[in-house]
This record gives sequence, structure tokens and C-alpha cells, in this order.
Amino acid sequence: MPAFEKLTQHYQKIAHFNHLAAISGWDQASMMPAGGNQARSEAMAELSLHIHRLATSPVLGELFDRAKQQELNAEQHASLREMTRQWNLATVLPEDLVQAKSLAGSKCEHAWRTQRGENDWIGFEKNWAEVVTLSQEEAQIRAQATGLSAYDAMLDIYEPGTSSHSLDKLFSNVKTWLPTLIDEVIDTQKDDQFLSPTGTFRTEQQKALGLKVMSLLKFDFHHGRLDESVHPFCGGVPSDVRITTRYDENEFIQSLMGIVHETGHARYEQGLPKSLAGMPAGEARSMGIHESQSLFFEMQVGRSDAFIAHLSHLAGQQFTDHDPALFHFNNFQKLYTRVAKDFIRVDADELTYPAHVILRYEIERDLINGDIKHTDVPELWDQKMQQYLGLSTQGNFKNGCMQDIHWTDGAFGYFPSYTLGAMYAAQFKAAMTQTVDVEGAIESGDLTPIFTWLSENIWSKGSLLTTDELVKQATGDTLNAKYFQDHLRSRYLP
Amino acid sequence: MPAFEKLTQHYQKIAHFNHLAAISGWDQASMMPAGGNQARSEAMAELSLHIHRLATSPVLGELFDRAKQQELNAEQHASLREMTRQWNLATVLPEDLVQAKSLAGSKCEHAWRTQRGENDWIGFEKNWAEVVTLSQEEAQIRAQATGLSAYDAMLDIYEPGTSSHSLDKLFSNVKTWLPTLIDEVIDTQKDDQFLSPTGTFRTEQQKALGLKVMSLLKFDFHHGRLDESVHPFCGGVPSDVRITTRYDENEFIQSLMGIVHETGHARYEQGLPKSLAGMPAGEARSMGIHESQSLFFEMQVGRSDAFIAHLSHLAGQQFTDHDPALFHFNNFQKLYTRVAKDFIRVDADELTYPAHVILRYEIERDLINGDIKHTDVPELWDQKMQQYLGLSTQGNFKNGCMQDIHWTDGAFGYFPSYTLGAMYAAQFKAAMTQTVDVEGAIESGDLTPIFTWLSENIWSKGSLLTTDELVKQATGDTLNAKYFQDHLRSRYLP
Repeated sequence: MPAFEKLTQHYQKIAHFNHLAAISGWDQASMMPAGGNQARSEAMAELSLHIHRLATSPVLGELFDRAKQQELNAEQHASLREMTRQWNLATVLPEDLVQAKSLAGSKCEHAWRTQRGENDWIGFEKNWAEVVTLSQEEAQIRAQATGLSAYDAMLDIYEPGTSSHSLDKLFSNVKTWLPTLIDEVIDTQKDDQFLSPTGTFRTEQQKALGLKVMSLLKFDFHHGRLDESVHPFCGGVPSDVRITTRYDENEFIQSLMGIVHETGHARYEQGLPKSLAGMPAGEARSMGIHESQSLFFEMQVGRSDAFIAHLSHLAGQQFTDHDPALFHFNNFQKLYTRVAKDFIRVDADELTYPAHVILRYEIERDLINGDIKHTDVPELWDQKMQQYLGLSTQGNFKNGCMQDIHWTDGAFGYFPSYTLGAMYAAQFKAAMTQTVDVEGAIESGDLTPIFTWLSENIWSKGSLLTTDELVKQATGDTLNAKYFQDHLRSRYLP
Repeated sequence: MPAFEKLTQHYQKIAHFNHLAAISGWDQASMMPAGGNQARSEAMAELSLHIHRLATSPVLGELFDRAKQQELNAEQHASLREMTRQWNLATVLPEDLVQAKSLAGSKCEHAWRTQRGENDWIGFEKNWAEVVTLSQEEAQIRAQATGLSAYDAMLDIYEPGTSSHSLDKLFSNVKTWLPTLIDEVIDTQKDDQFLSPTGTFRTEQQKALGLKVMSLLKFDFHHGRLDESVHPFCGGVPSDVRITTRYDENEFIQSLMGIVHETGHARYEQGLPKSLAGMPAGEARSMGIHESQSLFFEMQVGRSDAFIAHLSHLAGQQFTDHDPALFHFNNFQKLYTRVAKDFIRVDADELTYPAHVILRYEIERDLINGDIKHTDVPELWDQKMQQYLGLSTQGNFKNGCMQDIHWTDGAFGYFPSYTLGAMYAAQFKAAMTQTVDVEGAIESGDLTPIFTWLSENIWSKGSLLTTDELVKQATGDTLNAKYFQDHLRSRYLP
């Protein structure tokens, strides 16, 4: 059997085990009773080890060399590129470093779960020192292997092709207009009157409403389902996508838009190329592109006037025992476009969110490159929060640099994906409007033209193109922050 | 590392993968949207292959030999015995026979799903011939390896230690009194008046009722859950047992007692020895002993007057919009102890069920031993149905020998477990009453003394003892049909 075909078989096998990992992980988060956790964790660790062994199998190196000599078509060529990339990512680190980082990360994260509540920076810093050192070590090894700088080599895990050079350019542009824009919008909104949800919104009713909204967004229920978990996520496999949400019976605003967001992730997965199912080239392009789809659904579609009209109408039909004024279009619109400066990234609105991300990016870049020490972080955090959002986190570690889980286990390089996603989404929307009547499609209640564009330009491409190629082909331009700026200005200062 | 400890590690690894197979299988039956089936089936086939390779690993043979030389305590000795047994079962058949039988079985079962509805014996017989031939071949190989007769070697898969000699003895005893007893009971019941469920019993309400009954039976919800599937089953792993049921909104009788039955299976699993979790010696003893626990719950406890009083009370509380007369104790008692001769095993009552099993046992025994041809089966079926239940299946294949799934894919040797289970349950109950006030415990609503007895005598033993030892230690007697006869007479002809 030719080497490329052998590789295809091997990655198909890995995909089968990844399928089981995805479903067991979903079950653990959404279905499993607490008492099942220990045996499940052990079983999943065994599976992870097995997948890791398959993904780092020494025979692959030789097969890649031989496959490169074969005559391959464009799709096979991309497939080989992505297999090689995954293999390089998996094999570059020595086993003992992987293990040491995993242990240090687990220890730091576990302690952080109580330390955060206690605002205990001193305790946290002691564990975190080890995580940072090992992450720097990881970055050095990755840098040597890829020829990138230390931080760029970490970035490459999540956003292949993106560099701190391009991020610096994008984000320094954003920093020239964002703080002023935020102030202007807050000033415009300061006298807004609106009703907030009060009373009880039963879980069953919220779920029924969520399912209706998923239908409007053409989620394929033949290939997926909606459930509950403490932290909402999109999991499963492309032929069986599992999204989750969390219901708070005191309000429905968060879980409803959360479902719209996860549906964006889900439709990307459901729309990946079926002919490449299980192959690395058939997977989602990057974290940033994945986030672009969830944010396209949540921000570009979900917070548009036309979609808010649907939401307010459907919610009013669902919650007939509440004050109808709560569900008026104008009220919904205000609820879903409210801007406020606050400490916590995960609760941030569309406009302040990038400030949280840029702050983290600048700190983690300098930390991984060894330009600052981990003990410098709280002060830098405070300085940048003052600068970007006018808030002080002096002594307030729990709402400052201790608020996120990402750094506790060494996931440096991930944060930029959130704002890259928002920027890609705005750029896709701008390109789409050249051929599609987006607002008209949303108003009509049949969003098919929008999804057809996304399917043709993004979903069906999997990882066949590089991110730059994908964005250029879809929009005629490489990533440019002006689309994001235009979008924000036209939404918040119309 | 000594051989026994190496074996323990190896079987722990197998258990981890079995865990994932159990959860993925449960998900496939109860949660998975239809469109996920192909990818799931492929992933599970990959996992099965992986587990099979681990279970038949050539290094095990030598490890068993070396472990036998070690000094082992009684528990380790039993553990080694059960590992060896599983290894022998898994390795005795040549791969090509396993594959051929699997293919023939799938083909026969797939066609059977439509052929049964069409009463198409001629079409079925053509596929089934191959399944029977391959099963006979399998039985011959197993017989040579174990020194047992052909059919006994198949029986040994499900009921180690049980022989057709002992079954012949047990069942010929039953045949001397069962047909007469059935006639007597039907005559006694012939003028009984009772109300059957009418109207709608909503799924949510049936589920709420089921959960209350599971609580009464002390199902551990910290280590398990209740869901829905087309065919009810008990799956998952001991630390996370997943039981399912199927709701028919036209009645609640079946699903309610179905839940009691599956809860019996579940509590056995939940009560298996934790110190042997993942080890073959920590698994359930046999299919018959597993069924003894579900039937202990369903028949010995579930259909007792005291438990029927609980059920009728709880159901009346749940379905307040129905005629209260339906939920009177006397009515419930009649609904749950009604005896009738009918064609279908799975719908049979406690009294006629053994007749269905004995008929199948006698036919499959002679078929696998080569004493009859597969084309003789319909006529033998008709003869025996006439003899045991006074019903003719002449020309009625779909309600005769084509009704069960078991034979279509060659699961010969399984049917006796159902009636062995009923007999073990009756014998356990008789032994238990010597030290436990069973009826009093049920009446009080605290069934703890019953479960303590089962836990001490059955659940906590796993597979440490042979079936004979287990039954002898628990009841002071080897399996004896008289306990079953006494139970049936006292319940149905009080």
C-alpha cells in the first residue's frame, strides 16, 4: 500500500479514538453522575495515552517522507501538510517535559480554584512559577523546531500562520480607536431606560426557546443535540455535534445568546467536508476561525436588529406569564447591546472584550519571550486595565490576573484567538454583504443564503487552505481590523 | 514486576477501554441522534478490535504460567482463574471463524428484521443455515478445548459450570408440574374482574414515578442514572450504572416493572466488590446470576403484595387525573399477576415464561449437538408449544421460531439463563427468609435488610466463587427447582 494511503488509514484510526474521547468527554460534563468521575478519568487518561502513542508513532516520519515522493492532488497535498503539522506538534516535546507541565498545570489549577476566591496571589504565584518556567521551556523547544520566536511558536499551536508581528500591528491599530469608542458608546447609552428580567424562567421553557432558535439557525438535529453543563461548550464529532448551555432560572438572556454562540461552532463542525471526515485536513482551520463562526452567529447575526426581532418575538411567545414589555424589540435590543467597563473578560460585552484580550496578549507575549517575570504580571495588569478600561486592579488579583483558567495550566498563546475570531467574523460579514442581502435574509426568517455563503467559503474548506488563503479567498483581503472597527461603529454609534 | 501484578495492570487497561465501550454503547442507544450512527459504529468497531487484541495478547499465556508459580491468596487465585477463563474464551476460536460468524450473523439478523414481519421462513432459513453451521463449528472447537460436549461448551460462555445434564434434570422436573399449574391458575383467574389503564400517562410523569420506585429500591443515583431507549437495558460500569426504559403513554404498567427489573441488574453492578474493580474476578458471576438479581427485584420483591401496595400508592399519587380505582391495591395485584398462554416469550408472565425457555433450550441443545437439522425447528417448535402451552404455531413462524433475535446471530446457549435466574431468585428468597423478615421489610418501606443480605451473599462476591459455591454458601443447597415451584404455587394458588 502506498505511504499516503497508509497514513490515511492511520489517521482514520486516530479519528475513531478521538471520536470516543469526544463523546466520553461530553458525557462526563453533561450526563455523568459525580460518583462515576474517578473511573471515567482513569479510562479517559488511558485513552489519551493510546491516542498520543498513535499520534507520535515513529513509523509516521518515514511514511511522510515516502508520501512526499508520491504524486498527490491538491487535496491530498493539504492532507499531508496537516498530518505532518499535527505530528510535529505532538512529537516535538520530550515526554518528561509534557508530563512535568501536565503535573504542574494540574497542581496550579487545582489550588487556583480556591486561591482565586481568597485573592491569594502569594499562594498562586508559588505554583504558577513552575508552570511559567515549563511553558517557557516548551516555547524554546518549539521555537527551535519551527524557526519562530518563543511566543510565536506557542501561538502556532492554536493559530498556525499568525505571528506576534501581525498581532502587534492589528492590536496597535485597535488601541488607537477602541478606548475612545467605548467611552463614546457608554456616554450615548447612559440615559437608556430598559427592563431587566425578573421572576422565574423555567429551565424547560428556556430549553424549548433555545431549540426554536437553533432551528431558526438551521442546526442539524439529525447530527447533533443540545444539553446542559456547568461550562457551555461545543463537543462531539462533525456527524454528531453536542452543544451545551447552562440555565439560570432568574434570567434567560445569557443562556439564549450562549446557545446562538455554540450553534455557530456547531454549524462549522456540521459543515466540515465529509469527504475528509477523520483526516486532519478535514478539521476546523484554527481556534480563531472556529471563534469567527460562533461570533458570526452571536455578534454579526445574533445581535443584528433583524435577529433581535426574532428573539424578542420567540421569547415573548415562550414566557407568556411575564410582563410583555420585557420582550419588546426596543427593550431586547438594549439588553443585548449594553456596553459597560468591567473586570471580568467572560462577562464582557462585544465592545470591551477586545481590550481584555489585548491586555492578556501583551503580557503573555512578554512573559513567554522572557522579557518580564511572572511576578511582574499583577502590576502590568493594573497598568493596562487603567489604560484600556480605566479600572484599577491594584490588590484585586481575583478580578485581575487570577480570573482566567488559561494561564494556570500553561495555555499561553490561546487568548488572541478570541479577538481574531471577532475580526474575521466582521470581515466575513463585510464580504458577504457584497453578494447576499444579509439583513433581508434574517428578516425573512430564512437564513439559508447566509449559511450557504459560510458553507461555501469557510465550512467546506476544513483545513485545506491556510488561514491566510482562506480569508483572502473568502473576502479578497488578508485580515484587516478596519472591518471590525466599521462594524462596531455602525452598531454602537449608528 | 511479578507476573500476577503485570496481569493485573493488563486487565486494568482492558477495563478502561471496556468502560469507554460501555458508555459509547449506552450513548448510541439512548442519546445519539440517528445521523451519528455510521461514524459511531466505525469508532466502536475500532475500539472492539483494540480490546480484542488486548484480551488475546500472546504475552498473557506465559504470564498465566508464571503467575501460577507465585504464592497467591484466595482472592488472587480467583482473579487468576477468571482472567484465564476470559483469555481462553477469547483465544480459542480462529480469527476467520469469528469473522465469518459475525458476518453471517449480521446478514441473518438484518434480513430477519423484515422477514419476521413477512412470516418468511423460507427466506430466513437460507441465511440461518450458515449461522447454524458456523455455530456448530464454534461449539466443536470449544468442546475440544474444554472437554465438554458441543452444546455444553456454548452454555459455558454464559453459565460456567452449568451442563445440559443438570439442565435436563432441572427442566424435566419443571415439566412435570408446570403445565398443570398454568392450567389451574388460569382457571382460578378466569372470573377475575379488573381495570386496565386507559387514557394518557405522560412520559415525564412515568419517569418521575420510576425515579421514586428506584429510590425505594435504593438505586444509588450518585453512581448511575435512568434514561430511555428502544430496548431497555442495564449498561455503563459499576461506578456509573446506566439503566434505560421505554415509555408507552397508553399505559405505565410495563415500563414501571421494567424499571424495577433493571434496578435489580443495576444494584448488582453497583454492589460488586470495589477492591476488584476492573478485574475479571470483580465482574458479575454469570448471566443467570445477573438475571437472578433483576428477577429477585421484579418477581420476588416487585410482585409481592407488600411491594404492589407501594406501587399502587405511588402510582395513584402520580396520576391524579385518572380513575383512582385503577390504582387500588386489588386492581394492581391482578394486573401484575395475570397469567395467560401466549406465543411471545418477551411478553410472557412469570408462570408461562419457563415453558418458553425450556422449549428453546431443548431445541438449541439438539441443534448444536447435531441431533436435528435447522429445518426441523418449526415443526419441533409447534410440537413443544402444543405440549407445554397448548398453542399451535403451525405456519406461524413469526410468532414461533422466528420471534427472538438470539438465534439469528448465533447466541446459542443463552436462553437457559433466564429461567436459571428465576430459579436462583426463588432459592435466594427462601434462604433469606430464614434470617430476614422480607415481607415486613418491604411493608415498612425500608428494604435495607433485604439488600444487605443480597450484598453480603451475592453482590460483594463478584466472581470470586464459582456459581455452585456461591449458591451453596448463600442458601446451603445447590440449585434446586423446588424453591421455584413453591414460590409459584404460593403466589398463584395461595
